[in-house]
Formats: sequence, structure tokens, C-alpha cells
Amino acid sequence: MPNPVKDAWKQGRAVVNGWLSIPSAFAAEMMAKGGFDALTVDMQHGVQDYMSTVACFQAIQAHPVVPMVRVPWNEPGIIGKVLDAGAMGVICPMVNTAAEAKALVDACRYPPIGLRSFGPIRAAVYGQGSGYFATANEDVAVIAMIETKQALENLTAILDTPGLDGIYVGPSDLGLSHGLVPKLDRDEPEILAIYDRLLAETKKRGLICGIHNGTPEYARTMVDRGFKLVTTSNDSALVALGAIRDVSIMRK
Amino acid sequence: MPNPVKDAWKQGRAVVNGWLSIPSAFAAEMMAKGGFDALTVDMQHGVQDYMSTVACFQAIQAHPVVPMVRVPWNEPGIIGKVLDAGAMGVICPMVNTAAEAKALVDACRYPPIGLRSFGPIRAAVYGQGSGYFATANEDVAVIAMIETKQALENLTAILDTPGLDGIYVGPSDLGLSHGLVPKLDRDEPEILAIYDRLLAETKKRGLICGIHNGTPEYARTMVDRGFKLVTTSNDSALVALGAIRDVSIMRK
Amino acid sequence: MPNPVKDAWKQGRAVVNGWLSIPSAFAAEMMAKGGFDALTVDMQHGVQDYMSTVACFQAIQAHPVVPMVRVPWNEPGIIGKVLDAGAMGVICPMVNTAAEAKALVDACRYPPIGLRSFGPIRAAVYGQGSGYFATANEDVAVIAMIETKQALENLTAILDTPGLDGIYVGPSDLGLSHGLVPKLDRDEPEILAIYDRLLAETKKRGLICGIHNGTPEYARTMVDRGFKLVTTSNDSALVALGAIRDVSIMRK
Amino acid sequence: MPNPVKDAWKQGRAVVNGWLSIPSAFAAEMMAKGGFDALTVDMQHGVQDYMSTVACFQAIQAHPVVPMVRVPWNEPGIIGKVLDAGAMGVICPMVNTAAEAKALVDACRYPPIGLRSFGPIRAAVYGQGSGYFATANEDVAVIAMIETKQALENLTAILDTPGLDGIYVGPSDLGLSHGLVPKLDRDEPEILAIYDRLLAETKKRGLICGIHNGTPEYARTMVDRGFKLVTTSNDSALVALGAIRDVSIMRK
Amino acid sequence: MPNPVKDAWKQGRAVVNGWLSIPSAFAAEMMAKGGFDALTVDMQHGVQDYMSTVACFQAIQAHPVVPMVRVPWNEPGIIGKVLDAGAMGVICPMVNTAAEAKALVDACRYPPIGLRSFGPIRAAVYGQGSGYFATANEDVAVIAMIETKQALENLTAILDTPGLDGIYVGPSDLGLSHGLVPKLDRDEPEILAIYDRLLAETKKRGLICGIHNGTPEYARTMVDRGFKLVTTSNDSALVALGAIRDVSIMRK
Amino acid sequence: MPNPVKDAWKQGRAVVNGWLSIPSAFAAEMMAKGGFDALTVDMQHGVQDYMSTVACFQAIQAHPVVPMVRVPWNEPGIIGKVLDAGAMGVICPMVNTAAEAKALVDACRYPPIGLRSFGPIRAAVYGQGSGYFATANEDVAVIAMIETKQALENLTAILDTPGLDGIYVGPSDLGLSHGLVPKLDRDEPEILAIYDRLLAETKKRGLICGIHNGTPEYARTMVDRGFKLVTTSNDSALVALGAIRDVSIMRK
Repeated sequence: MPNPVKDAWKQGRAVVNGWLSIPSAFAAEMMAKGGFDALTVDMQHGVQDYMSTVACFQAIQAHPVVPMVRVPWNEPGIIGKVLDAGAMGVICPMVNTAAEAKALVDACRYPPIGLRSFGPIRAAVYGQGSGYFATANEDVAVIAMIETKQALENLTAILDTPGLDGIYVGPSDLGLSHGLVPKLDRDEPEILAIYDRLLAETKKRGLICGIHNGTPEYARTMVDRGFKLVTTSNDSALVALGAIRDVSIMRK
Repeated sequence: MPNPVKDAWKQGRAVVNGWLSIPSAFAAEMMAKGGFDALTVDMQHGVQDYMSTVACFQAIQAHPVVPMVRVPWNEPGIIGKVLDAGAMGVICPMVNTAAEAKALVDACRYPPIGLRSFGPIRAAVYGQGSGYFATANEDVAVIAMIETKQALENLTAILDTPGLDGIYVGPSDLGLSHGLVPKLDRDEPEILAIYDRLLAETKKRGLICGIHNGTPEYARTMVDRGFKLVTTSNDSALVALGAIRDVSIMRK
Repeated sequence: MPNPVKDAWKQGRAVVNGWLSIPSAFAAEMMAKGGFDALTVDMQHGVQDYMSTVACFQAIQAHPVVPMVRVPWNEPGIIGKVLDAGAMGVICPMVNTAAEAKALVDACRYPPIGLRSFGPIRAAVYGQGSGYFATANEDVAVIAMIETKQALENLTAILDTPGLDGIYVGPSDLGLSHGLVPKLDRDEPEILAIYDRLLAETKKRGLICGIHNGTPEYARTMVDRGFKLVTTSNDSALVALGAIRDVSIMRK
Repeated sequence: MPNPVKDAWKQGRAVVNGWLSIPSAFAAEMMAKGGFDALTVDMQHGVQDYMSTVACFQAIQAHPVVPMVRVPWNEPGIIGKVLDAGAMGVICPMVNTAAEAKALVDACRYPPIGLRSFGPIRAAVYGQGSGYFATANEDVAVIAMIETKQALENLTAILDTPGLDGIYVGPSDLGLSHGLVPKLDRDEPEILAIYDRLLAETKKRGLICGIHNGTPEYARTMVDRGFKLVTTSNDSALVALGAIRDVSIMRK
Repeated sequence: MPNPVKDAWKQGRAVVNGWLSIPSAFAAEMMAKGGFDALTVDMQHGVQDYMSTVACFQAIQAHPVVPMVRVPWNEPGIIGKVLDAGAMGVICPMVNTAAEAKALVDACRYPPIGLRSFGPIRAAVYGQGSGYFATANEDVAVIAMIETKQALENLTAILDTPGLDGIYVGPSDLGLSHGLVPKLDRDEPEILAIYDRLLAETKKRGLICGIHNGTPEYARTMVDRGFKLVTTSNDSALVALGAIRDVSIMRK
Repeated sequence: MPNPVKDAWKQGRAVVNGWLSIPSAFAAEMMAKGGFDALTVDMQHGVQDYMSTVACFQAIQAHPVVPMVRVPWNEPGIIGKVLDAGAMGVICPMVNTAAEAKALVDACRYPPIGLRSFGPIRAAVYGQGSGYFATANEDVAVIAMIETKQALENLTAILDTPGLDGIYVGPSDLGLSHGLVPKLDRDEPEILAIYDRLLAETKKRGLICGIHNGTPEYARTMVDRGFKLVTTSNDSALVALGAIRDVSIMRK
């Protein structure tokens, strides 16, 4: 603390994020060597639970990378637990209404902004100066995923929820919600138009807009478009694709 | 069973091997998708122990890939345990004398060839036909690592140990033992000469010779040279190098 | 994929199901040897959590048995996670209203049928042909537990929920809800009458009806009655009862 | 069973409680040696999940100490699981309304009092006489945390919820809710006045009132004040403060 | 402490022993309900390691059953660890010479009898009266497995090793060593003659003789023959055989 | 790297060491907050194995404390593994002869000093500058435990073994070996005389002498006596003694 991810956003810089799907602290250390600004444990679709998240956080603590979590769902129990474990950012899936956005903020922020319960058992170990509590509401990044038609319909109300730092696009679910196949790195004009709307609406409010990507090459184009949080790499995909590539070199 | 790795050797084909250093069954599944002939859990230098080895074996059982282990050391307790857990191949580090080669065979083979104790608790689940015991001595691959000057001095006696299927070169330790820096994918003429000696001596006896490599490109040259077991990829290196590559694309 | 459990139902066959309560991949392998059509990890009353469920799935993947889960509760976070981990069937406890049935379907089915979020990280490894997504909505079995008076009152509305494959009876809770002691393998006429109503109402709609049993002998009578998903065995009960039996033989 | 904690309350004695934050069965055994009346696994702010809770319960089963849990949140899935695992007491955070108190009781009590689902897989191992079910509703302690202004506003309705055994004060959150810094062992008169109101209102109804403390010295004053469940010690704090104390002795 | 297993032997009673192969504390609790005199964690052929052994010990501590271990091999490191963890009996595989028997005793007994290092971190928690150390050398059962021709040749010297409590027959390995198939519950006259010799030689010296069995029925005949430690049941076999039996009832 | 523990010794300062017996990365973080110079995972008598050691190392990596290990025994397999995992110091129990001291050095040092195999999978992540290999032989502290009469008889030969950094006294075993009760913080003149001999003999050779203590108060006297590595605190003792103390305050 303070949170380098939020510092980057204050300075207008995009945050390069890695995704941890393998439930292994050692794999997390390998990712931490990569030089990402942030590493996000994917508790929703990754093979991760609370204990593996704690282990990953412990493993990357020595590295200059911000620990974040995509929580499995907008549920206060687990959100509180990962924050207490030291998450400096929470990405929450399927925030489709203002009430859901408010619930997310309530779970992430201490009173009077929200309703988070106090007990930062591991987080406080790594707080500094006047301590974790003094700046937690300022330092923790709270990000709502916008990935359905319903969310787009409620966009204004969601974005106007006090206490939110920004939004994050899930291209697969957004596509599914629009009757398209689920995939990343999309180029359908209707989807790109949505992206631009999200960028404009967030910028207008001083919020950031992030997006999940399948390749760093595509992620770069998203940074150019204005996204400030871009995930470029997934540990399990690095293994799977690297293995296929290496074997194919041998089989040629 | 029977063991496709040993079938490949009977047919003169080289076995493409992946290396499991991440103690995660899920990472092992990602490797198994790659199409390797065999996957070896590295209990010596990898972040693996007995339980993670069992989990990796369970995870790759559904894939057409042969489960092998590099044991942490030439110790009968752990060698017996990984065989009982289903290892179809054992690579043993630092076999420097004929006595050590004999101890390795004793730990891997049932009487009358060796002294392995009977109790293939998980291995027997996946035996076929007349059962695990009937063919285990035939099916399990027993491989001694040759990676020191001392081993080279004792090479003939080591290779003449009944019950051995072959040897495996550890280029880093072999280099260290010769006063060179530890690294893979070596090109020093003195080292390549050793490789050729190992290839000739094993071929003469109907044994196979394998080698650890840092890249598939180098591994291909080793297959051309005559090596029949080539490790091309390490899961933790795939993560670490992939992360560095992806971030560097973003930072450019 | 396709899901042999759903194939069986299409052909009118009853599915013999085993229950995994021990959080051990190795115990799951022992169960998988038994020849069950399906194995269900009991995350509600079993000593199981998400990680042990993944480990059990990995352990039984090599066996011709369908991996299913009884989720701990009708909560979208955990339902999504077990499906992404490869569950081909979800049994959900305490579905008492049509709204709860709808919530279950929403958590299990991709749009446009439901609201499941896309990211089948492990499930997709074992999808085939056109891939996991193409047939997941068809292949995954979604089963609501009917185990309270309230559920019986709302039965029609629950059964008419689109996207449900069937229901599953929890005899202990159903008994409790009717003021009876909690037990399996019931023979009270009032309970059997409920069973027949459930069988008739599901059959009418092309849904299946399943039931939890304490013994295979009783389960057979339930198959004769018309149940198409019968659990016959619980790994922890096999250990506990087997231990008692063996010791009693010794103590005689 | 019966539950010594409830026996103590019947006799008017205060229960001395230890807090388990370290996810280690061995650490739990060390705590169990201490002589506490009860040990509570803190699944909310502690580094604990379901599996570590089960392990802690197993570890302390041989000791004369009552296993309890602070659940992560008022969610029926996890409450049912910890009760099935053998919890004899449930402390639930953030019970702010009568509806929330009712939901807590529903999750903890079997019908007809509540809606708990039957399947006490581990709990039943340690039931006695006529078995776990016969006395579970009587034996399990159900405790609602009162830690917000909202809870105080709804206090009467919360306390009048049938099936509750008592309440437990979270001083940090209670302070936060009143605009004060989060801390334990408070001495603000306005807070002490709240304590006295809680003591009076619970006593009037035959309920107990408990409180979380930072030191045994403060806890003693709370026992004198009338609190019947006082937490005095936290395993992770014993390690952290003990380490600091020992090093400071060396550095002097 | 004192050790009921050694008490039984003093009184001439046979000890009924269960075998723990599943690495799960919960499975161990299920076994502990069975009423065995002792439960032995099989670290050699079972899917067990040190941590799972500790967990099993913790799980059975509340039950009136003696915790024992079959160690993976005659290695002082692991033998010391399981004793410190609370093992009250050590069964050691493949003791073939007097030197190996002496090494086993050295690892299990404190000076002046042996060389065990002091630090009974978990064991001491459950010592009584004057403490663990005072009676450990007396209380711990040290058992050498006799399962090869070589051991039979060295039998006298092995049995005369001071500090040994007895021996344990491994019928599979003993058979293998004699050119027979590996199996339990043997009836070859030559093997039974060996059993009788072992019984006579141990009895003569006040040592006990135990044997591993496949069924309680066979074990009873071994008790009648004079064996004082009979293993009758294996948790993984209870699951595997129970599953097969239950499914076969359904498939009839 | 370089290793602050060895720097301290070069400067003549005593190293204050904490002892990790609880197999929990979180407990290790609590210890790391204490301000110790080094933390040693006790794999011999502590409830630790390889995986818990790795987790503890990951957890303390962010803290200015040197990770060390007491290995379970003088076995090259596990010594290599903990060094590869990042141990910067190895304390080895029961080094009683020069041959055992040489074996320890062989396992800890790369050629040409020893025989350590190259593959510092996690250690290398935290190496600096020219990398882990370049300075590992210099940076790793290798410490032999002197804790038997036999070791004292062989003291000169042990201390003259090239590659050793020092010795460490185990007072309990040393006492046992001399016919005394096992305990720490000894004051028998004959034992103190041994300490002084060890201090003199090590000082003469530029080696350090360390000692295991039960309290920081006693440890201070040992620093004054000349010991340069003093363990003052054990995490499990902090829990156990703290729990007893806190409960006794309540019970007064």
C-alpha cells in the first residue's frame, strides 16, 4: 500500500495483468517473474479456491506485482475473505444491476462507504504507515464485470454507484448474451461499438475500463483504444499452448 | 500396460517427454493435452513430492501419455512408492557406480530380478489382462542418469547391470562435473564426444540413451544424433518464459 | 461428451450411481473400479469441497463413469465452478419453488436458456468434436432435489421449469419435513405414495426421477418402481460398515 | 453431546473460548492443550476454509473442548456443512435483521424449528445414546453477531427469533458502525452502554451474550459484567505477539 | 500411554489391526468406528505420506485405537518423524539382516537402547503422568517384517536383536521370494511351515508374531495358529470390493 | 543473496533464529513479523514436510529473514530438494562422524567442493546479479548438529571437514547421550564444559557455533557465551504456552 494499480490509473497508464488459473503457489511465482503490473487469481473459472488464493498471494508477495482476485460470484462471504487475505483488487463477475453494483461495493468497502466487516488478518501484515484500515477504502480497487445485455441496459446506474473504481469486460459472456459464440479478442463491429460506449461512459466518470484478452497482441490494441486494465496471459494457457507448440516442433 | 514407451523403443522410435515441475494435477492435465509420449514428474529438482506425483498421475491417466518419475534420489522407499502409484518409468539421478545401478534395479524390479516389494496399490488398477504383476518387470522402464565423471569411469559396469533399460544424460551436472557451467543444450566438443560414446555403448547393448533438453529445437538434433528419450519442455519454464514474452510484447 | 447418463435416460435405462463422501482422489478411483454408471461428489453432506471435487474428477476421468456433483446449495458461484471443472450432472438440494428451480437452471445452462458464465477451464479439455460449448446445454444433467412439503406443494411449477432434466428424492429430509425420522429406504405408505406421484408427474413431462438409497437391494425395488437414477453406495459407508463387519467376524 | 457449552450456560457459567485462525490441525491441537471450554474456527476473518475446519475439528476431538465455528457469512450452504462436520456451535457474523436471524436458525435447526438438511456425516460419529439427530436441535448453540447500528435498531426482533441461543458482540465492527476506529477491548462509554443494553435484553429472554476480546485481562472484566461467552486468545496473535516479544528480549 | 497393544500382548491376546491406505483423515475416522485394537497407516504401499499420516493420527486420537505405522522403508528420518507424530507402533518392511534389525531399533528407541533423537512434538501431547519420554522405550512397539528368504536365513540373529517387540509376516513378498505368486491368505504347506517356525522362534523369545491377511476369516485361523497381530481389513479394499459388490447386485 | 546470516557471522554478530514447527505458511508469516534474522523450518521434529517447507519459504520471502531448514536426516535427496526450494541454510541432525560431515557437505555444495546436483528451481528465482549458481557455494550455510558422545569423540575430524560453516548443539539429545534427561536450557557443569569446548574448537577454525534454546532469556546468556546462532522461539510453543497462560488468567 498504496496500490500501484491505482497509482497507474491516476497517471493514466494501462495496467498489464496476468491471470492465475493453476492452483499452485509455485506457478504463481513463475508468473510473478514475468513483470506484470498485477496478477489476478481467477476464482470464478480458474481451478482456484480460497486456500489456493492465499497461497498464490503469499508466493507473489515478494514481487512488485499487485495481488487481485476475480471472485467466484457477487457473494459477501468470499469477497470479505479474499480482501482479508490481502487482495488489493476485486473483479466481480456478472454485475448486471445497480443493486448488484451496490452489493459489491458494500462487500469491499468499510463503513461508512460500505459494509465490509473488519478483520484484515493477512492484509494488515502488509499494510504500512498508519496501517491497513486507514487507507483500505482508498487503496482497494473494486471492479464490476460488464458482460451481459442486462448490464448494458443498466449501465448508467451501475457506473453511478459510489465506491466503484471501474468495470471489466468479459468478451465471451458479452458475446453469448448477444447471441454470438463465446470467444475472446472479438472484432464484431457491434461488440466494438459496445466497447467504445463503455470506454466513453467510464472516462466521463473518472472510472477505468478493463478487458480480458486472449493474446498480448490483441491486448495492445485494446490499450490503444483506451482500456486501462488488460489481461494478456493465463498461466494454464501458457502451459497448454506451449506444450502443443513444443510437441509440434518435435513431430514435424 | 503394455508400456507404449517401451514399444516405441522396440520399434526404434524416440520418445518425446514433457517434464512436470509444478505440483498441480491441473497443470499436468494441460501438459497432457500437448501430445507428449510421456510425462515425467520431476521429484528431484521439481516442486513435487509423493502426493503431488500421485495427483499428477491421476490427472494424466485419461490421456494417452506414459506416466514416469524422476525420483529424488536412489532410495528404495520412494522408488517403491512411485511405482506402486503407477509410474511406468523411473529415471534415477546420480547413478555413478555399478552398485548404485544394481540398487536401482533392485528397487524397481520384482524378484527374481530385483527386490521390489509387492503392493501396487494404484498401479494395479490400471494393469490389464493377466494383471499388473505378470508384466511389471517387463513394462516398467528403468533409467539411470549418467551425469558425472565418476559415472563415465564406471560406464561399462553400469551398463552391464541386468535389468536396466537405458540411461539419461543430465547435461548440467555432467558439465559441472567437468568444470563447466551448468546448462542444457550444450555444444562443447568434449561433451558431444561423451554423448556419442554413451550412444554407442548403449546401442551396443540394446539399451536406450536419453537426454534432458532446454528447447525442442535442440532436442530434435539429439533425436537425429540417436537419443531415444528426449525431454523438450518443462511446465514451469513454459509459464515463466511465456509470461516474460507476453509482458515484453506489452512493454514494447 | 455426449453424456452417457443422458443417453441411458433416452433409452429408458436406470442409472446406477455411487456417492463420493471421502475427500480423496484415490478413494474415488476405488469407487470408479466398481462399475457405476455415474459417480456423484457429495459437496452438501459429504466431506468435500471444490478442490477435492476437482481431484475426484481427475481421478475418475480415465474410467467409463460420468462425473456428477451434489452441490452444497443452490448458489450460482459454486455451481458454475463445478461445471467448469467438468461435472456432467448437477444435483441441487432443497429446490422448493419454481423460482429456485429457475435459479438452478440459470446457473447450469448457457444463454439463451440460462445465465451460466463461459469459462469451462477443465470441462473443455474433455469435450469432443465441435467442442464443449456446442453441446454443453444438451449434455449436462440438471436435477432438482425434491425433499420438502413445500417442494411438493410447488411440484407442478418446479417440474414445468424449462431446462430441468429431472428430480431427485432425498428420503431423509422428505421424512423430516413430514414429521418422520430421517432415514433412507423408507416404507411408509404416505411416503411411497409421494414417490409414485413424483414418478407419474415426471414421466408425464419426459423428465426423470431419481432417489437416494441406503442399500442396493432397496435401490433395485426403486428401479422396478420407475426411478431412473438410483444411488446405491457411499464410499464412507462402505468403509464404516465394512470395518464393523470385519471386526465383528474377529470378535465372534 | 450433550454440549458442555450449553451446560455451562444452564449453570450460569461463562465459557472461555479460543479462536483458531491458523489453518492447521496441529496448531489447533496446541490450542486444545490450553484448557479452553470451546475453540472456534474463524472462517470469516481467519485463514480457514471448510477443509481446514474439518481438520481442526478432527484434531481437537480427543480434547475436552467444544468445537464451534464462526461461519464466513449467513449462507445456508456453508452453515450446513460445518454442522455436518461436527460444529456444536455456530457464530454468524452481521445478523442485522430478524429475517437474517430467522435464516440463521433455519440453517442450523432441523425441522420443525428450522430447515437444516439431514446428513450429519461426521457429526453423527460423535453423537451418543439415541444418536445425533435426537438431540441436535437442543445441543447446537446458535449465536448471532450483533455488530452494527442496524442490528441494534432491530434488536428486539432479532432476540425474539425462536431458536437462537444468544448473541455475540464484534467490537471492531460495532465501533466502525458508530464512526469509531475498529478495535477490540473498547472503553468508550457509549459502547459500554450498548454492551449493558445487550446484556439486559438477552438476560431477560434467557439468552446468553458473548463478546470478542483482545486479551484475557479485558475478557475477565467482561465476564464480571455478565458476558457468558468470552474469546480471549487467537492462535495467530499468540504466534505474532510471542515472536515480537521474544525477539525484543534478544535485541535489548 | 501405556500402549494397549503391548498390554494385549502381555496378556496373550491377539491384536486386531486395520490398515489405512486412503490418505484421508475422514476415512480413518470411519475405520476407527469399526472397533479395531489398532490402526496402521501404510506408508509403504498405501497412498500415504507423512502429512496424511499425521492427519490420520489426529482423526483417530479420540477413538480407543492404537495408532501405528508401516514405514516406507528402514530409514531413520521417516521413522523418527512418525514416532514424533505419535505412532505407538512401527512396522518396518524388508528387515533381512541383524544389522537392519539393529538399525530399526536404533531409529525407534531412545538411548541407551537406541539412537532416536528427542523431540516428540505431537506424541508428547498425548503422553501421560510422568510424560512421554519416561515410558516411550517401553510403550512403542517395534516390529520387523520378515518377508524374504534372506530374512529367514538370518532369523535367529534378527530375533535376538535387543529392543524388538516382534515380527510381522508379509505373505506376498515372502511368496515372491520363494518363487510363488504374490498373494495373501496362503495355504502352501511350505509357507505354513515357515509360519510355524516363525511362531515357535518368536514365542521362545517372548516376542510376538503378526501377519498380514486379506480377509477376517483367514485372519481368525491365523489367530488360532498363534499370531498376535493380525491385519484383517484395508480401507481401500473395503471401498473397492464394496463398490463391486453393490454394483453387481444392481446389474443382476 | 548474499546471505545476511553469513554476513552477520563475518561481522561477529549472533543470529537470532525462529523455529517453524507448524505446517502453515500463514503461521510462518506471523513468525516473520517478529523480526528474527532467520527462520528455520524444522523438518526433523516439527510437523513439516517438503511441501509445507516450500509454502513457508514462499510466505516469508517478502520479509527480511533468511530461510533455513533443519532437515529430517542426513539424506542427500531431501537436502537437495530444500536447497533447490530456496533454503539458505541447512542444519543437519546427528552428524557423528567425519564421513557424515563430508556427506552433508557433498549434499549441500556444488562441485568441485561437493556433489550437489544442479536444478535450483525456486532458489534461482531469488538469486541476483550473476545468478544463484555463481555464489551458492559461498552463500548457503551448512551446519552440522553435534548432539552425541560419538560426535564429541570425532569432533576434530568433523570440524576439519572442508565446506562446513559451523555446528549447532541439540541440548536434549546431547543430554540423553550423556545419560541425562532430555531438556533445553541446561546448566549441568559437564554440559556447559562441552559447550565451551565446542565454542573454542569452532572459533579456532573460523566456524560458528549455534545452540537450540527454550527461552530468549537463556539464549541471551548463550550469545554472551559466544554462540552465533541461537534459536529462541518455536511457533508451536508460542501457541501452546500462550494458550495455557491466557486460560490460566481466566481461571484464576
